[in-house]
Amino acid sequence: MSDQILLKLGGSVITEKDRTETLDGPTLRSVTEAIGTHYSSSDDLIIVHGGGSFGHHHADNHGVTTTSGSSDYRAAMDIHGAMKTLNTFVLDRLHDQSIPAVPVHPFSVASRSADGSLDYPVTHIQRLLDEGFVPVTHGDVVAHENQGVTILSGDEIIAHFGRALEPDRIGLCSTVPGVLDEEDVVIDQITAYEPVSSVLGDSSATDVSGGMAAKVKELLSLGHESYIFDPSSIDQFFSAGHPGTRIVSENSK
Amino acid sequence: MSDQILLKLGGSVITEKDRTETLDGPTLRSVTEAIGTHYSSSDDLIIVHGGGSFGHHHADNHGVTTTSGSSDYRAAMDIHGAMKTLNTFVLDRLHDQSIPAVPVHPFSVASRSADGSLDYPVTHIQRLLDEGFVPVTHGDVVAHENQGVTILSGDEIIAHFGRALEPDRIGLCSTVPGVLDEEDVVIDQITAYEPVSSVLGDSSATDVSGGMAAKVKELLSLGHESYIFDPSSIDQFFSAGHPGTRIVSENSK
Repeated sequence: MSDQILLKLGGSVITEKDRTETLDGPTLRSVTEAIGTHYSSSDDLIIVHGGGSFGHHHADNHGVTTTSGSSDYRAAMDIHGAMKTLNTFVLDRLHDQSIPAVPVHPFSVASRSADGSLDYPVTHIQRLLDEGFVPVTHGDVVAHENQGVTILSGDEIIAHFGRALEPDRIGLCSTVPGVLDEEDVVIDQITAYEPVSSVLGDSSATDVSGGMAAKVKELLSLGHESYIFDPSSIDQFFSAGHPGTRIVSENSK
Repeated sequence: MSDQILLKLGGSVITEKDRTETLDGPTLRSVTEAIGTHYSSSDDLIIVHGGGSFGHHHADNHGVTTTSGSSDYRAAMDIHGAMKTLNTFVLDRLHDQSIPAVPVHPFSVASRSADGSLDYPVTHIQRLLDEGFVPVTHGDVVAHENQGVTILSGDEIIAHFGRALEPDRIGLCSTVPGVLDEEDVVIDQITAYEPVSSVLGDSSATDVSGGMAAKVKELLSLGHESYIFDPSSIDQFFSAGHPGTRIVSENSK
């Protein structure tokens, strides 16, 4: 039986976050090579990537966040266009590894109601998986009731897919080797939010890319096994090992 | 109150159908200028375009039709990529007219079950309209149960939107000035299929782009007012006139 694997490639991992629309080519290549080594056509793999210096730059320019929108089609097109460019780079590198990756652009499928709740139908995602493809989706703009368009982050897509699909393993490939404690040592496992809340700080603070506290809280709520790790551990993630920090709520262990 | 208008631009209208991936620039410009003259931000306008020499060429190359698919990601990417290129041309010309056009790529949202029935959720389309945008969607590949990907034609999208949304007027801008009778004169109005069946021929024959008989049968079944006309009548369509052939079933007149 095939496993369903949900992998997020952080925007800061695959782009140079301080230089506008600049890929971190070597890291993207090493990550996609690792995926290529482990990918088997019997796996159900979904890849989600963040915006890094492609999406965030244009989002900042137009003052668009996950909650504050724009009705200007030029803002929507700038952000969406930059994310499609980054998506094309990711797809190209995956194709170099003969991974049957295909794009799924959230602006073409998802939207939010006034309270911000997300509608992102997944029937076609499941069908793409069943037909042997690897859907690659990403942070993007989406239509938002009374707001024009707002940002949908890669983290929010992971949370949504964690509920709408049935992933066996969720991986967040980040710039840090895991969730770090006060002494910057990777926390091996998190099974509840309270014990680590002092390390992670205020989880109510949100930014477009989502802070670590928000990520952990969200992953705990999903009830699936998930891991936060950096690119050096991606092999381990695909080998069903224990890279970085393992996050699974006590209730679902 | 705003009207909802559903306009299809035939692939043969906006491309040179005999030359691979070649735009019919002058016609696309005249059509988008006519839309720009009449478009008001209070209108709900959805534009659907066909594939013409962009989509069909690659679909033929890979042997992909509306019913016979391919599981090769390269086939999917070739067809999808060509359609995105054409879509970008259409969007650019609409933006030249300050129309707030945004792309909706079917491959990112739609799929078919084994019997070919289409799933194309429209919540985000309605939300884009409500937020003042003009969704521009197109013929594309879509995941198809047990087939890999097959073609979704612009005509099929029109039929689906005619059912899933509530258009006040549907327009098919074609290369012919309307549905023609035996003497190549435009039939003014069609209210039932039987009286015109001898002119239209066998409606069971289908091709990727859909023949005239199939178009008429489908439009009659929708129960909305629709028109088939050529680019010279697009002004008339937007002025709520009677361009080309009016098609509305007797039951819903």
